[in-house]
Amino acid sequence: MTYCVAARLDSGLVFLADSRTNAGVDQISVFRKMTVFERPGDRVMVLMSSGNLAVSQAVLNALARQHDEGGETVWNAPDMFEATRRVGAAVRDVYHREAPALREQGVDFNVNLIFGGQIGAERCRLFQVYSAGNFIEAGQECPYFQIGEAKYGKPILDRVLRPDTSLDEAAKCALISMDSTLRSNISVGLPLDLLVYDTHALRVTHFASIDEHNEYFRMIRGTWGERLRQVFAEIPDPLWTNPDAPDSLVPPSRVHQPLRAEPVDAPMASYPAPQVLAEDPGKDQAS
Amino acid sequence: MTYCVAARLDSGLVFLADSRTNAGVDQISVFRKMTVFERPGDRVMVLMSSGNLAVSQAVLNALARQHDEGGETVWNAPDMFEATRRVGAAVRDVYHREAPALREQGVDFNVNLIFGGQIGAERCRLFQVYSAGNFIEAGQECPYFQIGEAKYGKPILDRVLRPDTSLDEAAKCALISMDSTLRSNISVGLPLDLLVYDTHALRVTHFASIDEHNEYFRMIRGTWGERLRQVFAEIPDPLWTNPDAPDSLVPPSRVHQPLRAEPVDAPMASYPAPQVLAEDPGKDQAS
Repeated sequence: MTYCVAARLDSGLVFLADSRTNAGVDQISVFRKMTVFERPGDRVMVLMSSGNLAVSQAVLNALARQHDEGGETVWNAPDMFEATRRVGAAVRDVYHREAPALREQGVDFNVNLIFGGQIGAERCRLFQVYSAGNFIEAGQECPYFQIGEAKYGKPILDRVLRPDTSLDEAAKCALISMDSTLRSNISVGLPLDLLVYDTHALRVTHFASIDEHNEYFRMIRGTWGERLRQVFAEIPDPLWTNPDAPDSLVPPSRVHQPLRAEPVDAPMASYPAPQVLAEDPGKDQAS
Repeated sequence: MTYCVAARLDSGLVFLADSRTNAGVDQISVFRKMTVFERPGDRVMVLMSSGNLAVSQAVLNALARQHDEGGETVWNAPDMFEATRRVGAAVRDVYHREAPALREQGVDFNVNLIFGGQIGAERCRLFQVYSAGNFIEAGQECPYFQIGEAKYGKPILDRVLRPDTSLDEAAKCALISMDSTLRSNISVGLPLDLLVYDTHALRVTHFASIDEHNEYFRMIRGTWGERLRQVFAEIPDPLWTNPDAPDSLVPPSRVHQPLRAEPVDAPMASYPAPQVLAEDPGKDQAS
């Protein structure tokens, strides 16, 4: 599997990808999932991929081979929307060539791409391209896209990322999101490719390859977990005993009664009347 | 969908379930997923379910109907392992009755259960029961189980839960895990059923039904998000400019170079030599 995340901020773009690929659990390899298309002064485009690795590589190869005289390529696309359309067209080309043979053997045609960058004076743009070659663009309300093992690392993005988040903060947020994913899912692994693009740079200026010795990432992993546990300890524990306290877990406004299965064969007398904790919590908390 | 989580601690058990059920996005209902089997002084068992709702309800019904004279029921099981085996047997009964008709219409027989509790003097035990009726027990190393939309809320459990975590802290942790899930996935929804079981109580003593007006849960939702953003802000941003600084993001020990696609049709002269940021970060960070 894979985890890639990218964000489009007011001040630029952030891309982060892991590099673990696996076929089952006993065939684990390192493949880089981020590819940069750069012509300094003219355009920078970044492609990240998840899904079937053979399909991803075939798409990349199709993009690299778009070089016929006068042909449409990502290198001569006038803007990012058109470049993304050409990425989608490459996905469709690969689909037509590969999908029938894959289908015969019960293999899904499965590829998901994040594609973003800047061409000339146009603003930075960020897209997610589906297996069908269609695509969506990130907007102000949802400034990020994820592909691969996205769920573990989504909560921190939802809580922190805003369009006005700075690039360095967004990179930090992406690294924390990756850390949560690395801890909870072994199909995602180091090293990481991190690329931070400043609007109007039109060249790659900030790129880091992050392995297990990277001190900044080690600091994030250690500090984040430790501070999270501190914050956790500082939040008050639930208050069961006084339903009238303002932050009680069992306010009297609600009946606090679980759904119960009754022992059908037992005499009814052996089954106590329903207990409503909020009405008499003292008795029920005797233990 | 559903999200349920349960933990087995040294001091007892914690169960938390949401109550949203959906068939597609336009048929959303509230069904409680936690059912309590309680005979005070003798046993408390808690069952939480995810998956196909009709299957879950059929299993519950099968368990409630295990009342034949001399029959094996969860009410007369001598210990939790045997009770869980009987839950698994109920799943298999339902499978034999329902699966062929479901299969004909392309519907998976999909049910996942968490089942835990205490019978007599035996220790508290916690199990996860699969669709095939087989099951696993939580141990010291992994003291919790999740079913349903488990990924969003897993990182906080991995970071905080230990066998010696107190019951109230584990309840708080489960609520934070639920909060992360609620924020990132609309198929999980309030109200929540929270049950905290103290070892040797042999009755339900701490149960809360938590809706959007619950002040404790509102406090958790507000405080956790806010403090998380504070901690996030306190972590230093990545340092790009000085590769020799101890916590630099681009230490010179590694080549910081993205994978690049080359414009095959462009004259090679127009393509600059690879840039190794760590060697000359100043130049590349001019923007």
